[in-house]
Amino acid sequence: MPDTLLTPAQFLDHWQGHRRLTRRFIVAFPEKELFEFSVGGMRPFAQLATEIYKMAIPTLEGISTGQWNYDKTPMPATREELLRHWDDTTAAIETIFPQVPPGRFQEAMKAFGQWDSTGFGLLLYVIDNEIHHRAQASVYLRALGIEPPFFPDRS
Amino acid sequence: MPDTLLTPAQFLDHWQGHRRLTRRFIVAFPEKELFEFSVGGMRPFAQLATEIYKMAIPTLEGISTGQWNYDKTPMPATREELLRHWDDTTAAIETIFPQVPPGRFQEAMKAFGQWDSTGFGLLLYVIDNEIHHRAQASVYLRALGIEPPFFPDRS
Repeated sequence: MPDTLLTPAQFLDHWQGHRRLTRRFIVAFPEKELFEFSVGGMRPFAQLATEIYKMAIPTLEGISTGQWNYDKTPMPATREELLRHWDDTTAAIETIFPQVPPGRFQEAMKAFGQWDSTGFGLLLYVIDNEIHHRAQASVYLRALGIEPPFFPDRS
Repeated sequence: MPDTLLTPAQFLDHWQGHRRLTRRFIVAFPEKELFEFSVGGMRPFAQLATEIYKMAIPTLEGISTGQWNYDKTPMPATREELLRHWDDTTAAIETIFPQVPPGRFQEAMKAFGQWDSTGFGLLLYVIDNEIHHRAQASVYLRALGIEPPFFPDRS
Protein backbone atom coordinates (compact mmCIF):
# COMPACT_ATOMS: atom_id res chain seq x y z
CA MET A 1 0.00 0.00 0.00
CA PRO A 2 1.17 3.56 -0.61
CA ASP A 3 2.03 5.56 2.48
CA THR A 4 -0.42 8.44 2.07
CA LEU A 5 -4.15 8.22 1.99
CA LEU A 6 -4.63 11.83 3.06
CA THR A 7 -2.27 14.79 3.32
CA PRO A 8 -2.54 17.43 6.06
CA ALA A 9 -3.73 20.02 3.51
CA GLN A 10 -6.47 17.65 2.31
CA PHE A 11 -7.52 16.99 5.90
CA LEU A 12 -7.75 20.73 6.61
CA ASP A 13 -9.93 21.25 3.53
CA HIS A 14 -12.16 18.31 4.53
CA TRP A 15 -12.50 19.65 8.09
CA GLN A 16 -13.41 23.17 7.04
CA GLY A 17 -15.95 21.71 4.58
CA HIS A 18 -17.67 19.94 7.47
CA ARG A 19 -17.54 23.11 9.54
CA ARG A 20 -19.22 25.10 6.73
CA LEU A 21 -22.02 22.51 6.69
CA THR A 22 -22.39 22.57 10.50
CA ARG A 23 -22.60 26.38 10.40
CA ARG A 24 -25.62 26.05 8.09
CA PHE A 25 -27.27 23.78 10.67
CA ILE A 26 -26.80 26.47 13.35
CA VAL A 27 -28.53 28.92 11.03
CA ALA A 28 -31.31 26.47 10.05
CA PHE A 29 -32.83 26.26 13.56
CA PRO A 30 -35.26 28.87 14.83
CA GLU A 31 -33.24 30.62 17.58
CA LYS A 32 -35.49 29.47 20.44
CA GLU A 33 -35.33 25.82 19.30
CA LEU A 34 -31.58 26.06 18.76
CA PHE A 35 -31.19 26.62 22.51
CA GLU A 36 -34.15 24.63 23.83
CA PHE A 37 -35.39 21.87 21.52
CA SER A 38 -34.22 18.26 21.68
CA VAL A 39 -35.44 14.68 21.35
CA GLY A 40 -35.17 11.93 23.95
CA GLY A 41 -33.70 14.11 26.70
CA MET A 42 -30.57 14.94 24.69
CA ARG A 43 -28.78 18.30 24.69
CA PRO A 44 -30.15 21.08 22.44
CA PHE A 45 -28.03 21.77 19.34
CA ALA A 46 -26.61 25.05 20.71
CA GLN A 47 -24.90 23.00 23.42
CA LEU A 48 -23.63 20.43 20.92
CA ALA A 49 -22.37 23.14 18.55
CA THR A 50 -20.58 24.82 21.45
CA GLU A 51 -18.87 21.53 22.30
CA ILE A 52 -17.86 21.18 18.64
CA TYR A 53 -16.22 24.60 18.26
CA LYS A 54 -14.60 24.39 21.72
CA MET A 55 -12.83 21.13 20.85
CA ALA A 56 -11.12 22.44 17.74
CA ILE A 57 -8.45 24.89 18.89
CA PRO A 58 -7.51 23.20 22.20
CA THR A 59 -7.00 19.92 20.31
CA LEU A 60 -5.02 21.57 17.53
CA GLU A 61 -2.89 23.55 19.99
CA GLY A 62 -2.27 20.38 21.99
CA ILE A 63 -1.17 18.43 18.94
CA SER A 64 1.04 21.30 17.88
CA THR A 65 2.66 22.21 21.22
CA GLY A 66 1.98 19.40 23.71
CA GLN A 67 0.11 21.90 25.93
CA TRP A 68 -3.48 20.76 26.58
CA ASN A 69 -5.89 23.44 27.82
CA TYR A 70 -9.68 23.22 27.67
CA ASP A 71 -11.68 26.24 26.48
CA LYS A 72 -13.53 27.24 29.66
CA THR A 73 -15.26 30.33 28.31
CA PRO A 74 -19.03 30.47 29.03
CA MET A 75 -21.49 29.02 26.54
CA PRO A 76 -22.85 31.61 24.06
CA ALA A 77 -26.29 32.97 25.01
CA THR A 78 -27.46 33.88 21.49
CA ARG A 79 -27.08 32.51 17.96
CA GLU A 80 -25.15 35.64 16.97
CA GLU A 81 -22.61 35.04 19.73
CA LEU A 82 -22.36 31.33 18.83
CA LEU A 83 -21.70 32.18 15.19
CA ARG A 84 -19.05 34.72 16.17
CA HIS A 85 -17.18 32.04 18.14
CA TRP A 86 -17.71 29.62 15.25
CA ASP A 87 -16.21 32.02 12.72
CA ASP A 88 -13.32 32.98 15.01
CA THR A 89 -12.55 29.25 15.31
CA THR A 90 -12.63 28.86 11.52
CA ALA A 91 -10.02 31.61 11.16
CA ALA A 92 -7.90 30.25 14.02
CA ILE A 93 -7.84 26.77 12.48
CA GLU A 94 -6.57 28.26 9.21
CA THR A 95 -3.75 29.99 11.10
CA ILE A 96 -2.73 27.24 13.51
CA PHE A 97 -3.08 24.11 11.37
CA PRO A 98 -0.21 24.92 8.96
CA GLN A 99 2.04 25.57 11.99
CA VAL A 100 1.74 22.01 13.35
CA PRO A 101 5.32 20.67 13.31
CA PRO A 102 6.03 17.91 10.76
CA GLY A 103 5.67 14.51 12.34
CA ARG A 104 3.16 15.45 15.04
CA PHE A 105 0.25 13.92 13.09
CA GLN A 106 1.87 10.49 13.28
CA GLU A 107 3.13 10.91 16.84
CA ALA A 108 1.60 9.09 19.84
CA MET A 109 0.36 11.51 22.50
CA LYS A 110 -1.87 11.69 25.58
CA ALA A 111 -4.47 14.41 25.01
CA PHE A 112 -5.63 16.54 27.95
CA GLY A 113 -3.72 14.28 30.33
CA GLN A 114 -6.01 11.31 29.75
CA TRP A 115 -6.68 10.24 26.13
CA ASP A 116 -4.01 8.01 24.58
CA SER A 117 -4.07 8.61 20.84
CA THR A 118 -2.05 10.05 17.96
CA GLY A 119 -2.14 13.43 16.24
CA PHE A 120 -4.17 12.06 13.34
CA GLY A 121 -6.40 10.03 15.66
CA LEU A 122 -7.34 13.12 17.66
CA LEU A 123 -8.08 15.13 14.52
CA LEU A 124 -10.27 12.35 13.12
CA TYR A 125 -12.09 12.23 16.45
CA VAL A 126 -12.83 15.96 16.30
CA ILE A 127 -14.42 15.61 12.84
CA ASP A 128 -16.23 12.38 13.76
CA ASN A 129 -17.70 14.04 16.85
CA GLU A 130 -18.84 17.01 14.76
CA ILE A 131 -20.56 14.75 12.20
CA HIS A 132 -22.15 12.75 15.04
CA HIS A 133 -23.70 15.71 16.83
CA ARG A 134 -24.70 17.51 13.63
CA ALA A 135 -26.55 14.36 12.52
CA GLN A 136 -28.43 14.36 15.83
CA ALA A 137 -29.42 17.94 14.97
CA SER A 138 -30.71 16.69 11.60
CA VAL A 139 -33.25 14.56 13.52
CA TYR A 140 -34.19 17.57 15.68
CA LEU A 141 -34.79 19.60 12.51
CA ARG A 142 -36.92 16.85 10.92
CA ALA A 143 -38.92 16.58 14.13
CA LEU A 144 -39.51 20.33 13.86
CA GLY A 145 -40.65 19.93 10.24
CA ILE A 146 -37.52 21.67 8.87
CA GLU A 147 -35.49 20.23 5.97
CA PRO A 148 -31.85 19.91 7.15
CA PRO A 149 -29.02 21.42 5.06
CA PHE A 150 -27.90 18.99 2.32
CA PHE A 151 -25.31 16.56 3.74
CA PRO A 152 -23.03 16.23 0.70
CA ASP A 153 -22.74 20.02 0.19
CA ARG A 154 -19.54 21.29 1.83
CA SER A 155 -19.22 24.54 -0.13
CA MET B 1 3.52 20.53 6.30
CA PRO B 2 4.48 16.86 6.09
CA ASP B 3 2.86 14.89 3.29
CA THR B 4 1.04 12.25 5.32
CA LEU B 5 -1.68 12.82 7.84
CA LEU B 6 -3.08 9.31 7.49
CA THR B 7 -1.80 6.15 5.83
CA PRO B 8 -4.08 3.64 4.07
CA ALA B 9 -3.53 1.09 6.85
CA GLN B 10 -4.53 3.68 9.47
CA PHE B 11 -7.62 4.57 7.46
CA LEU B 12 -8.63 0.89 7.23
CA ASP B 13 -8.27 0.48 10.97
CA HIS B 14 -10.31 3.65 11.61
CA TRP B 15 -13.03 2.50 9.21
CA GLN B 16 -13.37 -0.96 10.74
CA GLY B 17 -13.49 0.64 14.19
CA HIS B 18 -16.50 2.70 13.10
CA ARG B 19 -18.08 -0.42 11.59
CA ARG B 20 -17.67 -2.32 14.87
CA LEU B 21 -19.48 0.51 16.66
CA THR B 22 -22.27 0.64 14.07
CA ARG B 23 -22.75 -3.13 14.40
CA ARG B 24 -23.41 -2.60 18.12
CA PHE B 25 -26.13 -0.08 17.19
CA ILE B 26 -27.82 -2.71 14.98
CA VAL B 27 -27.80 -5.07 17.95
CA ALA B 28 -28.99 -2.40 20.44
CA PHE B 29 -32.41 -1.91 18.81
CA PRO B 30 -35.32 -4.23 19.57
CA GLU B 31 -35.81 -6.05 16.22
CA LYS B 32 -39.26 -4.58 15.51
CA GLU B 33 -38.03 -1.02 16.14
CA LEU B 34 -34.91 -1.64 14.07
CA PHE B 35 -37.15 -2.09 11.02
CA GLU B 36 -40.02 0.24 11.90
CA PHE B 37 -39.14 3.01 14.36
CA SER B 38 -38.04 6.47 13.33
CA VAL B 39 -38.39 10.15 14.26
CA GLY B 40 -39.65 12.96 12.04
CA GLY B 41 -40.59 10.74 9.09
CA MET B 42 -37.01 9.54 8.54
CA ARG B 43 -35.99 6.03 7.49
CA PRO B 44 -35.78 3.31 10.18
CA PHE B 45 -32.23 2.31 11.12
CA ALA B 46 -32.39 -1.05 9.29
CA GLN B 47 -32.72 0.92 6.03
CA LEU B 48 -29.88 3.26 6.98
CA ALA B 49 -27.63 0.36 8.03
CA THR B 50 -28.38 -1.38 4.74
CA GLU B 51 -27.36 1.76 2.85
CA ILE B 52 -24.15 1.87 4.90
CA TYR B 53 -23.02 -1.70 4.22
CA LYS B 54 -24.09 -1.53 0.55
CA MET B 55 -21.88 1.52 -0.09
CA ALA B 56 -18.67 -0.07 1.17
CA ILE B 57 -17.69 -2.71 -1.37
CA PRO B 58 -19.02 -1.00 -4.54
CA THR B 59 -17.07 2.14 -3.58
CA LEU B 60 -13.92 0.20 -2.74
CA GLU B 61 -14.15 -1.89 -5.93
CA GLY B 62 -14.71 1.28 -7.96
CA ILE B 63 -11.68 3.01 -6.46
CA SER B 64 -9.61 -0.11 -7.02
CA THR B 65 -10.70 -1.03 -10.57
CA GLY B 66 -12.59 1.93 -12.08
CA GLN B 67 -15.68 -0.30 -12.42
CA TRP B 68 -18.68 1.20 -10.58
CA ASN B 69 -21.54 -1.17 -9.79
CA TYR B 70 -24.23 -0.61 -7.20
CA ASP B 71 -25.22 -3.46 -4.89
CA LYS B 72 -28.81 -4.15 -5.99
CA THR B 73 -29.51 -7.12 -3.73
CA PRO B 74 -32.80 -6.86 -1.75
CA MET B 75 -32.83 -5.28 1.68
CA PRO B 76 -32.47 -7.81 4.53
CA ALA B 77 -35.78 -8.79 6.15
CA THR B 78 -34.40 -9.70 9.59
CA ARG B 79 -31.66 -8.53 11.93
CA GLU B 80 -29.89 -11.85 11.51
CA GLU B 81 -29.75 -11.39 7.75
CA LEU B 82 -28.62 -7.78 8.11
CA LEU B 83 -25.80 -8.81 10.44
CA ARG B 84 -24.73 -11.56 8.05
CA HIS B 85 -24.38 -8.99 5.23
CA TRP B 86 -22.63 -6.66 7.66
CA ASP B 87 -20.07 -9.28 8.64
CA ASP B 88 -19.53 -10.42 5.05
CA THR B 89 -18.80 -6.79 4.20
CA THR B 90 -16.31 -6.53 7.06
CA ALA B 91 -14.40 -9.54 5.70
CA ALA B 92 -14.58 -8.29 2.10
CA ILE B 93 -13.18 -4.88 3.11
CA GLU B 94 -10.21 -6.61 4.78
CA THR B 95 -9.53 -8.54 1.56
CA ILE B 96 -10.10 -5.80 -1.03
CA PHE B 97 -8.63 -2.74 0.69
CA PRO B 98 -4.99 -3.90 0.63
CA GLN B 99 -5.38 -4.66 -3.10
CA VAL B 100 -6.17 -1.05 -4.05
CA PRO B 101 -3.35 -0.04 -6.43
CA PRO B 102 -0.87 2.52 -5.07
CA GLY B 103 -1.84 5.99 -6.17
CA ARG B 104 -5.59 5.40 -6.52
CA PHE B 105 -6.29 7.12 -3.18
CA GLN B 106 -4.89 10.40 -4.50
CA GLU B 107 -6.33 10.00 -8.00
CA ALA B 108 -9.29 12.06 -9.29
CA MET B 109 -12.21 9.86 -10.38
CA LYS B 110 -15.93 10.03 -11.19
CA ALA B 111 -17.75 7.54 -8.97
CA PHE B 112 -20.78 5.67 -10.32
CA GLY B 113 -20.70 7.81 -13.45
CA GLN B 114 -21.72 10.96 -11.61
CA TRP B 115 -19.73 11.95 -8.49
CA ASP B 116 -16.50 13.86 -9.17
CA SER B 117 -14.13 13.11 -6.33
CA THR B 118 -10.87 11.38 -5.44
CA GLY B 119 -10.12 7.97 -3.98
CA PHE B 120 -9.58 9.41 -0.52
CA GLY B 121 -12.58 11.74 -0.86
CA LEU B 122 -14.89 8.82 -1.62
CA LEU B 123 -13.57 6.79 1.31
CA LEU B 124 -14.00 9.71 3.71
CA TYR B 125 -17.54 10.13 2.40
CA VAL B 126 -18.36 6.49 3.14
CA ILE B 127 -17.22 6.87 6.76
CA ASP B 128 -18.86 10.29 7.16
CA ASN B 129 -22.15 8.89 5.87
CA GLU B 130 -21.91 5.97 8.30
CA ILE B 131 -21.28 8.29 11.28
CA HIS B 132 -24.13 10.54 10.13
CA HIS B 133 -26.77 7.80 9.91
CA ARG B 134 -25.56 6.00 13.04
CA ALA B 135 -25.91 9.27 14.98
CA GLN B 136 -29.49 9.58 13.75
CA ALA B 137 -30.00 6.08 15.17
CA SER B 138 -28.61 7.33 18.50
CA VAL B 139 -31.55 9.75 18.66
CA TYR B 140 -33.98 6.94 17.79
CA LEU B 141 -32.51 4.86 20.64
CA ARG B 142 -32.78 7.76 23.13
CA ALA B 143 -36.38 8.34 22.03
CA LEU B 144 -36.99 4.63 22.78
CA GLY B 145 -35.41 5.02 26.21
CA ILE B 146 -32.35 2.95 25.25
CA GLU B 147 -28.78 4.08 26.02
CA PRO B 148 -26.84 4.09 22.71
CA PRO B 149 -23.48 2.23 22.46
CA PHE B 150 -20.61 4.44 23.68
CA PHE B 151 -19.39 6.66 20.81
CA PRO B 152 -15.63 6.64 21.57
CA ASP B 153 -15.45 2.84 21.91
CA ARG B 154 -14.28 1.34 18.61
CA SER B 155 -13.07 -2.00 19.99
